[in-house]
Amino acid sequence: MIRKFTFGNPIQTGAVAKSIGAADSADFPFEHSLSDSFSLELTMDKTDIVYGLGEANRGINKRGWIYESWCSDDPFHTETKRALYAAHNFIILSGKSNLGIFIDFPSKIIWDMGYTETGKIKIVIEGRDFDLYTISAASPREVVREFRGLIGKSYTPPFWAFGFQQSRWSYHNEEAVDRIIDGYDKAKIPLDCVYLDIDYMQSYKDFTVDGDKFPNFAEFVAEKKARGIRLIPIIDAGVKVDDGYEVFEEGKQNGYFCKRADGSDFEGGVWPGICRFPDFMRQDVRDWFGSKYKFLTDMGIEGFWNDMNEPALFYSAEGISRALDQAAQLQGQNLDLGKFFKLKDTFAGLSNSAEDYASIYHIIDGEPVNHQRVHNIYGSNMTRAAGEYFEKEFGKGKILMFSRASYIGAHRWGGIWFGDNHSWWSHILLCLKMLPGANMCGFLYCGADLGGFNENATRDLALRFLALGVFTPLMRNHSALGTRDQECFAFEEPEDFRDIIQVRYRLIPYLYNTFQTANENDDMIFRPLSFDYPGDKIARECETQLMLGEECMIAPVYEQNASGRTVYLPEDMAFVKLSGERVTKQKLAKGVHYVDVELNEVPLFIKEGKKIPLCKPAMRTSLLDTEDIEYI
Amino acid sequence: MIRKFTFGNPIQTGAVAKSIGAADSADFPFEHSLSDSFSLELTMDKTDIVYGLGEANRGINKRGWIYESWCSDDPFHTETKRALYAAHNFIILSGKSNLGIFIDFPSKIIWDMGYTETGKIKIVIEGRDFDLYTISAASPREVVREFRGLIGKSYTPPFWAFGFQQSRWSYHNEEAVDRIIDGYDKAKIPLDCVYLDIDYMQSYKDFTVDGDKFPNFAEFVAEKKARGIRLIPIIDAGVKVDDGYEVFEEGKQNGYFCKRADGSDFEGGVWPGICRFPDFMRQDVRDWFGSKYKFLTDMGIEGFWNDMNEPALFYSAEGISRALDQAAQLQGQNLDLGKFFKLKDTFAGLSNSAEDYASIYHIIDGEPVNHQRVHNIYGSNMTRAAGEYFEKEFGKGKILMFSRASYIGAHRWGGIWFGDNHSWWSHILLCLKMLPGANMCGFLYCGADLGGFNENATRDLALRFLALGVFTPLMRNHSALGTRDQECFAFEEPEDFRDIIQVRYRLIPYLYNTFQTANENDDMIFRPLSFDYPGDKIARECETQLMLGEECMIAPVYEQNASGRTVYLPEDMAFVKLSGERVTKQKLAKGVHYVDVELNEVPLFIKEGKKIPLCKPAMRTSLLDTEDIEYI
Repeated sequence: MIRKFTFGNPIQTGAVAKSIGAADSADFPFEHSLSDSFSLELTMDKTDIVYGLGEANRGINKRGWIYESWCSDDPFHTETKRALYAAHNFIILSGKSNLGIFIDFPSKIIWDMGYTETGKIKIVIEGRDFDLYTISAASPREVVREFRGLIGKSYTPPFWAFGFQQSRWSYHNEEAVDRIIDGYDKAKIPLDCVYLDIDYMQSYKDFTVDGDKFPNFAEFVAEKKARGIRLIPIIDAGVKVDDGYEVFEEGKQNGYFCKRADGSDFEGGVWPGICRFPDFMRQDVRDWFGSKYKFLTDMGIEGFWNDMNEPALFYSAEGISRALDQAAQLQGQNLDLGKFFKLKDTFAGLSNSAEDYASIYHIIDGEPVNHQRVHNIYGSNMTRAAGEYFEKEFGKGKILMFSRASYIGAHRWGGIWFGDNHSWWSHILLCLKMLPGANMCGFLYCGADLGGFNENATRDLALRFLALGVFTPLMRNHSALGTRDQECFAFEEPEDFRDIIQVRYRLIPYLYNTFQTANENDDMIFRPLSFDYPGDKIARECETQLMLGEECMIAPVYEQNASGRTVYLPEDMAFVKLSGERVTKQKLAKGVHYVDVELNEVPLFIKEGKKIPLCKPAMRTSLLDTEDIEYI
Repeated sequence: MIRKFTFGNPIQTGAVAKSIGAADSADFPFEHSLSDSFSLELTMDKTDIVYGLGEANRGINKRGWIYESWCSDDPFHTETKRALYAAHNFIILSGKSNLGIFIDFPSKIIWDMGYTETGKIKIVIEGRDFDLYTISAASPREVVREFRGLIGKSYTPPFWAFGFQQSRWSYHNEEAVDRIIDGYDKAKIPLDCVYLDIDYMQSYKDFTVDGDKFPNFAEFVAEKKARGIRLIPIIDAGVKVDDGYEVFEEGKQNGYFCKRADGSDFEGGVWPGICRFPDFMRQDVRDWFGSKYKFLTDMGIEGFWNDMNEPALFYSAEGISRALDQAAQLQGQNLDLGKFFKLKDTFAGLSNSAEDYASIYHIIDGEPVNHQRVHNIYGSNMTRAAGEYFEKEFGKGKILMFSRASYIGAHRWGGIWFGDNHSWWSHILLCLKMLPGANMCGFLYCGADLGGFNENATRDLALRFLALGVFTPLMRNHSALGTRDQECFAFEEPEDFRDIIQVRYRLIPYLYNTFQTANENDDMIFRPLSFDYPGDKIARECETQLMLGEECMIAPVYEQNASGRTVYLPEDMAFVKLSGERVTKQKLAKGVHYVDVELNEVPLFIKEGKKIPLCKPAMRTSLLDTEDIEYI
């Protein structure tokens, strides 16, 4: 049962797709208090689990930490970070009963999940205007289904977006792109997409292509498509301040950019240097910005990733100026520690500063609204701008679209990737733990940067990360400027990588169908084991394995120099290892096992009495024969 | 068999205690090349393990990453860091044969353990003057024994240093210290030591006590000792530049400080602001600095921790001045991204900069030697300064001494702690993985900051971390300024903490004896499972459990919200749970098991046919009745 409680005058976020009437606030079931913020408190039993928060840090069970809903461009996903790129304000408190809570509020929320007091959830909503939904159901899975019914069906990408995708910051010109495709083809490793990061543009200007690097872009795109490869360019939130640059001029002349308090356009530095920021809160701005993608779709582009849309702000002119003034005052002084650390912190704190965010204004219903009040729906509305345009122009499911920042509601317009992770072994598990959370909130098309974005991947890390990525709808290898080459063919013995990627292609019919079924049924693709085995204590606490669809359990290897892992089977299952076209299968009884998994093998567990389809591998999704199926 | 190869004219580091003759360099067994650096290469079989590097990052098996020997004040121990505080240049390549390599060289060494090429170890020694020892033996444990015979017996602390110790940055005055002791006593949690971090001093000046905070320090120390509590003050490497401050004046007048190229004293900023740095490379400086501890031992102090001795350098006057000049030039400019990031990086890079280190000179045998050539033995020689004084003045094993920075050789003069870790779950395992490495290199008295130094610990993290710390010779809870209170009595239901700490006291007779036996036999306290079960593949790869002494295996719980863990038993064992005075015991067969462990329980596995002694718990080590023993 869903109940809605409305407090004050909520800003419409677009999260909810089905309007329901508000209950009497006298029936509000939680202890709460109201000042400038609204605080509420719930009690947890010792063994209660808290699921949720979508794409968030730490465990599947969110107990024992404090989180913040505040879309953050923070590339350093250590375990104590409270906020990452997304603000997904949905949790389930699961134990003797199962209670979902969705707080539809576009500014900061603090979720203290037994961090301060082990037995209490304390939620602070930094405002007085919001909708809060409670959802009671017999199981956490049922709570999810009801919630998903409320927020509407998920974005579905084109079929080819289930193919393997290769990205890097940056394949900056034709030769670089060709070298990647040739590398994959030569190593006989399947591939469907190559990504264009910021360097394909002229001076990082959205909706431009650098003619020196790509002299005839439309032709180049067509050529690649004839080879079965889609190019996927990036689009950033900031629009470069550059006289004569059409997008900038149009935005400026039509007043489409975010404002300062004095009504002038806000300016902040991101990749192109000083930029202005489209006011995506407005429908007319979304329509305008969405239509700009036409520049690239006209040249044959069929997919995009929206980035830097928290929005990230490296600096503002005002912030730098203040920092430089501070530095000037210290010249010639013998700095004590206090002054030294203050200076260092000033420069370190220039990016994504609260001061800068507080100086931005949007126009909502004709009125100026400070950015901080709607921070968490900025990126989502950029995705919506693109998604609405694509749907109008091409129909549903034709254009690949996913975003870094997100809020619930954006799941109807695009997918997400899990942002700028690291080439850390711990980030294999972090990806795994994010998957059910993202699914709960409607984000079905999602995945992490496989192999890790920042820092250097080793061969074994890349292989083990990819062996998990085989199952994620978005299967993309992505790495940062200055890191070691991370393409599958760049490592020793690339045939091991081929074995892993081929498994992906063999599984696409199954994975695509599982995706569609989950979407139709308002269900999850990936579930915690506890959803399926609530009475089984080991399953309930398991944070290194997931249920996949109705048939499978996945359990990636996530430690270096390990030739296998321990795995818990909550019931008898078949232990399957997939590698290229090879399949081995072994019955294993309920219980704890150690299983061997080679670097070129994908482990999978199939429930008794279930079978899943496998097709033959192919070099492209377009070459898959999805009729020629064997069942394992 | 040990062989020594000498290249060039090595600087004497003091690592080796037993002089052996050099072999003919024509017999040098490794592929190598010499330019400004010396590079050597070894081939690894697929299943070879690389042990070693002492207190270093990542796994027990060092394969698959690249490490640097370069003592570094880096408090951010993420998994891709190459260098931490120590430089322990000893590895064992273990497979069909077992080969130890010790490189006695006090500057940077790069250890590429199959990172660039999966089957190769590539070592780059950044210099031409060093001793390299090879050690062949039948087992890795035997290699360790031979190596330890070479480097001499380990430092042994006083018995009371096996008690539980509470630290924080900072218990800054009498009331703060008393509050801690009262807190522990009231909660009936055993305690032996309270630490004084930098704030006990006058303006962070070594060998001073702030009279406002501790009006009668000697009396206060005696009072605490009468309660069974030792106070353990910190000593930093840098000496504050402050006219009239005795230590500074003596160092200046006698020319004891490190120099610049022009012969003037080098100055750099650390906690006291601008400091000069004793030239610990010199025996006369060590004698002088060591004798300064008398100021505190005369007031009843019996233990110290040496910190900031990599040496850490927050900044130099020259570095800050250069940074401020750069900032001044940018004022008024519209910064492009390049200039912005360069500016930000300049301020971020002020600390521990290569440029500053390169501007420091030591005097060795009367000649100036650039700091970079001897960087890794600076901290060790500070420990030696203290250790030599303590031994001369008080005899062996009377004064507690441990250090942050270290090099092999310092193990004869003091212990180590593993530096400024975080309140991260992953750092429970990082501590576990460092223990055998540290032991291999002679550092027997060691341990991590339990509960984690940086950031905030949750109650469950603190309990699980302490349950591992129960077994580490140094058992100290330490946390940073600005973090949540981390003392055991500060959390909800402190009786769970009492149950854990009491287990430590019950185990002290066993742990103390295991320590002494390991030292006598040139052996390790903690061993990887692979040392004991080389033919057992699961044991060989196990990175979450350790063998302890001849009797036990330890396997801490290291995941949040987990009521237990999976554990691998390489043979039949008794699964023991210790909690306060309670003991449960259950036979478990060889194999993989899931075991339940409550937050107030310490899990321990005892081999068949073995027994270990337990005494009764007491509030102080001095109150332990080590004759009243039961065997479990």
